[in-house]
Amino acid sequence: MNWNRLFAQRTARMRSSSIRELLKVASQPDMISFAGGLPDPELFPVAETREAAERVLGRAPASALQYSETEGIPALREWLAARFSRPHFRLERENVLITSGSQQALDLIGRVFLDPGDRVLVENPTYLAMLSAWRLPGGAFTAMPADKDGLRADALEAPTRAGVKLVYAVPDFQNPQGTTLSEERRRRLAALIRAADRPLVEDTPYRELRYDGSRLPSVFELDARTGPQGRLDARVLQLGTFSKVLVPGLRVGWVIAESPVIEKLALAKQAADLHTSTFCQYLALELVRAGVLERQLPRLRTAYRGKRDAMLQALADVFPAGVEWTRPAGGMFLMVTLPEDLDARALLPAALEHKVAFVPGEDFHLDGRGRNTMRLNFSRPSRDQIPEGVRRLGAVVADARAQNRGRLDPADDRAFHATCGLP
Amino acid sequence: MNWNRLFAQRTARMRSSSIRELLKVASQPDMISFAGGLPDPELFPVAETREAAERVLGRAPASALQYSETEGIPALREWLAARFSRPHFRLERENVLITSGSQQALDLIGRVFLDPGDRVLVENPTYLAMLSAWRLPGGAFTAMPADKDGLRADALEAPTRAGVKLVYAVPDFQNPQGTTLSEERRRRLAALIRAADRPLVEDTPYRELRYDGSRLPSVFELDARTGPQGRLDARVLQLGTFSKVLVPGLRVGWVIAESPVIEKLALAKQAADLHTSTFCQYLALELVRAGVLERQLPRLRTAYRGKRDAMLQALADVFPAGVEWTRPAGGMFLMVTLPEDLDARALLPAALEHKVAFVPGEDFHLDGRGRNTMRLNFSRPSRDQIPEGVRRLGAVVADARAQNRGRLDPADDRAFHATCGLP
Repeated sequence: MNWNRLFAQRTARMRSSSIRELLKVASQPDMISFAGGLPDPELFPVAETREAAERVLGRAPASALQYSETEGIPALREWLAARFSRPHFRLERENVLITSGSQQALDLIGRVFLDPGDRVLVENPTYLAMLSAWRLPGGAFTAMPADKDGLRADALEAPTRAGVKLVYAVPDFQNPQGTTLSEERRRRLAALIRAADRPLVEDTPYRELRYDGSRLPSVFELDARTGPQGRLDARVLQLGTFSKVLVPGLRVGWVIAESPVIEKLALAKQAADLHTSTFCQYLALELVRAGVLERQLPRLRTAYRGKRDAMLQALADVFPAGVEWTRPAGGMFLMVTLPEDLDARALLPAALEHKVAFVPGEDFHLDGRGRNTMRLNFSRPSRDQIPEGVRRLGAVVADARAQNRGRLDPADDRAFHATCGLP
Repeated sequence: MNWNRLFAQRTARMRSSSIRELLKVASQPDMISFAGGLPDPELFPVAETREAAERVLGRAPASALQYSETEGIPALREWLAARFSRPHFRLERENVLITSGSQQALDLIGRVFLDPGDRVLVENPTYLAMLSAWRLPGGAFTAMPADKDGLRADALEAPTRAGVKLVYAVPDFQNPQGTTLSEERRRRLAALIRAADRPLVEDTPYRELRYDGSRLPSVFELDARTGPQGRLDARVLQLGTFSKVLVPGLRVGWVIAESPVIEKLALAKQAADLHTSTFCQYLALELVRAGVLERQLPRLRTAYRGKRDAMLQALADVFPAGVEWTRPAGGMFLMVTLPEDLDARALLPAALEHKVAFVPGEDFHLDGRGRNTMRLNFSRPSRDQIPEGVRRLGAVVADARAQNRGRLDPADDRAFHATCGLP
């Protein structure tokens, strides 16, 4: 049957990206993958999850295995409300919606806020799966320029522009660049959002994974205050998840926002999937109550700091001048910028042949820039794999550079080539 | 902040139904609830789920707790493909998408197929949460008339009408009526769908819960065949779920369809929630592999058959002539039709005061009909609660009838009133 004529207009154009198809080989056992955004499974709290399952099923099986409320199980919403309350504002259960991972939070926000053509301000490059989720309801994206401290100050005036519906940012250890918004810029963003009376979606999947320096206030913390009748007054919708810091396979995330927003998102969620797995919510609650999150965080920080350092060292060892990369203070990714004459997407097939995978950076960009960038993940590969994987990447880049040789300054090219350890 | 001005047009009108708000009290401990659609938690396979969790976390923790493929874990897709293959057609993994409950399958189908104004043919009354999911992308519903054998023969010509995008039906023990489509009508529906080259969404959450008579072929089984290159040739998208027969709290459902449909739904799912909980999928797979589903089904059928019989008996004991109800051969619901002068929605507050809950039938109807109908669930309340709950309902109905007394034939009313056991 010819299904294509039956698909809706907005989905008819949806295609699996060629990159995604290529990267299906990235799970081959001899591949060193810097491509995905996976936590290291060696660090999963397996024994603790087993004990949590045992306790949940011993104590409350009739509730933990049953259907449950769309908004999430009350005790987990209350735990999150308490965790993210601050002296200058108090969150209640009504300010928390449990979602099936942060991706669902993005999807629900897109459905609830975006009419076709609505303007959304985003960092550039930005999170790919947010673009997928918000393109479907018709969001139109405008890039806010960024530098290594995140959004540039001049970009931060943008929320005051007329016609902007939402602003989206990942202030901590952004995906794909790993950059962090400075405190001064956070304060400025919070003030501008409030002055313009526009919502900011602050996505914080990596926020707890800081390896250097001290914790900065979230934009949510800077914006939120106690309003009339003791209620939360906030322009920011903050998204969080247990996926990067506890167990990704549970798919438990959340949105924190003013209660009218939570109510509307819950209506959309009811139509989307009724509710997030009750059992997974009970498991997550049991894990955090048993202190597993607090024990995991230092373990993860130590391990991922070591991997980040190994990757930075390997990049410095392998790549010559002319190649640059970000130096993230946390998170799971960094971004490499190759010389302008190289197209990272064109390098991917050769990289996969050399058994090393990465994600070309162009797809994270809105304006066709970033053709010469690669996103590298350092949380999933082992410490040993990192230098070897970067060495393979270096060989691929040097080969490509060699093919471009005729068009380049010979001295520059010789220096580049030599440091890649190739003949 | 005034959020209402920021919500998208199609969601601005979404409101929590007054019925849903009223029914929040239905979980009070002294309430007898016929309102929800919950399985009986006394019948949950708790020990088996505990053992399954133990085995999964002992054997494959790194996979079971990690992110996983959008389409679902391969082994579960293969298990389902094998289970639903028949001698005249063979399903492959590519014909199965795992969803976060059947509700997500409905949501994804709505997104992938429906443009605003697209015509959808449905039974009347029909499943409420399908209406919620498909109204959002703009589906416009046309009711196909039904009688106690399901869709009427004259309605079955409807799919051939021009402009119909999708047909939706629950042939087995439909929610809310509990009615079942006869085999002859299934054959006719399958033939018409094929002649008209239109997709049918066949939703089968209750299909395995048959208490009387013999299993009828699904419309999918009647329609599907082996096409070119041994591929599935089917106009039907069949939805299924483990929620009613295994564990609702896992939120694991599926869609079976031709692979181009599965691919497109997977793209929509990727934007919606990346994937369904890996751990829940592993648990479901472990449970079915251990034979738990096959052991649960006879237990559930015996228990629910007993409850259905108790409810039918109680209805016969309490309600006089002039009140009618369906006699489902399976599933979890039946529908009571009160005399025309009664409005079930108006009775609900009094019923909740009498500590008995039901869902007014009007919301399941498309055309304002069904004002005098109530949907009753018999799977969740205990055997003991059923006669007592029906007695309470009878009292509420008799009270309302008494208030209408002046407008009614006195003899008719006396008879009605007496059998409700009231003065």
